[in-house]
Amino acid sequence: MIKVIIIGSGNVAQHLIQAFAKSKKIDVAQVFSRQKEAVSHLLDSEKITSDFNNLAQADLYIIAVSDDAIASVSSQLPFENRFVVHTSGSVSIDALDKKNRNGIFYPLQTFSKKAEVDFTQIPLCLESQKEPDFEFLKNVAEIISDKVYKINSEQRKALHVAAVFVNNFTNHLYQIGNQICTTNHVPFEILQPLIQETAKKILTLSPKEAQTGPAIRNDKQTIAAHLDFLLDENQKNIYQILTQSIQNNGKKL
Amino acid sequence: MIKVIIIGSGNVAQHLIQAFAKSKKIDVAQVFSRQKEAVSHLLDSEKITSDFNNLAQADLYIIAVSDDAIASVSSQLPFENRFVVHTSGSVSIDALDKKNRNGIFYPLQTFSKKAEVDFTQIPLCLESQKEPDFEFLKNVAEIISDKVYKINSEQRKALHVAAVFVNNFTNHLYQIGNQICTTNHVPFEILQPLIQETAKKILTLSPKEAQTGPAIRNDKQTIAAHLDFLLDENQKNIYQILTQSIQNNGKKL
Repeated sequence: MIKVIIIGSGNVAQHLIQAFAKSKKIDVAQVFSRQKEAVSHLLDSEKITSDFNNLAQADLYIIAVSDDAIASVSSQLPFENRFVVHTSGSVSIDALDKKNRNGIFYPLQTFSKKAEVDFTQIPLCLESQKEPDFEFLKNVAEIISDKVYKINSEQRKALHVAAVFVNNFTNHLYQIGNQICTTNHVPFEILQPLIQETAKKILTLSPKEAQTGPAIRNDKQTIAAHLDFLLDENQKNIYQILTQSIQNNGKKL
Repeated sequence: MIKVIIIGSGNVAQHLIQAFAKSKKIDVAQVFSRQKEAVSHLLDSEKITSDFNNLAQADLYIIAVSDDAIASVSSQLPFENRFVVHTSGSVSIDALDKKNRNGIFYPLQTFSKKAEVDFTQIPLCLESQKEPDFEFLKNVAEIISDKVYKINSEQRKALHVAAVFVNNFTNHLYQIGNQICTTNHVPFEILQPLIQETAKKILTLSPKEAQTGPAIRNDKQTIAAHLDFLLDENQKNIYQILTQSIQNNGKKL
């Protein structure tokens, strides 16, 4: 049985504990959490520690804390030459203290504490400093996910930026859609099937093939009418810039 | 049995023909199509006409043609005082010739010819010029959809603009995500679960509650790193404007 210790108690830590608990090949031997209550519903309380000096021996230590805390946590680990990975999309592997063998175990998904997650469908992006550690990390990852990728730090940076566009920025466009509905006394729920279909469509079409609307058709009349309709300067500005970008991309590709 | 005639042979027309065909309460008595082949797989060829003068008597005429053609088609109809609606999100009810009783039958969804569509889940936005026609239109709509709304032309305009944000612009953000992946030799498929989850999340959370990422956290270091990473000026510009907009909205609401 592979012994794993998880350091952290946030969303990612909690989802990892739950995913590993489903497998008989992995033993979550211990969890480090400053507040025991944060994870006490997930495992026996004697397995929770808030003291780095109490950390047991394990095959893999997964640091799942906020980006800012990764470097400090990794340097506080009271051991050397063990395998220590972090779970962040945006922090370099070099943030981890060199006294241990380092790696990355980055689940590319948006987690909320409440929502149930099917971990088998979450892409895990892996990296290891030392080649022999990679196979082991891959084995661990494949126990909980069907989507395991070897991704170096530069590629991970690209993924993280791309994720901001398709997740954070997309959600902001939903918010603008919501604002336009509210301002005009229309229930936002009318847009839900369209939103779901827009996402579903690119499971089978490339985003370029899936592009529709006045911008790609260069329907000047509709674009002018929309800009005339929008009173909020910020919404108007975003409308213009994204319309322009769609038209330039249509030509370029 | 309610007799409906559909004028047009594009995506919307074809999906409507198929949706009505599933109901025993509606008879698609005729379809007007300039090219018979476009709809000949959907109904008997004697029901297809390309001559306005051959149009039969019906309870409802649905004009499902391109926005530009609606006014001209409606004025070419060789009859008066019948119930004629169009299916466009962006064209005013006034575009329809006044010689007939007018209305709107706007399905708010993105249609592609290939993809199967569950019409019961497509919101239908209805409007009628004369009040008595509304109940009839609602009855027809409820035969094929579970989501029927009374939406006036001003509200419909708002919905259409909002739909551009949540559909066309969102798809463009997917395309930018795809470009970033391609440039950096990462498979775009890694982002698919995130994209699907981003859309699913707002079925239960408001977009404001669902907002995550460096912009809303005001994580200046990550934002700077991302801007530094992006070499394409257009991507950089969109990143800055949407980040700014998320931060302004976070304060405002």
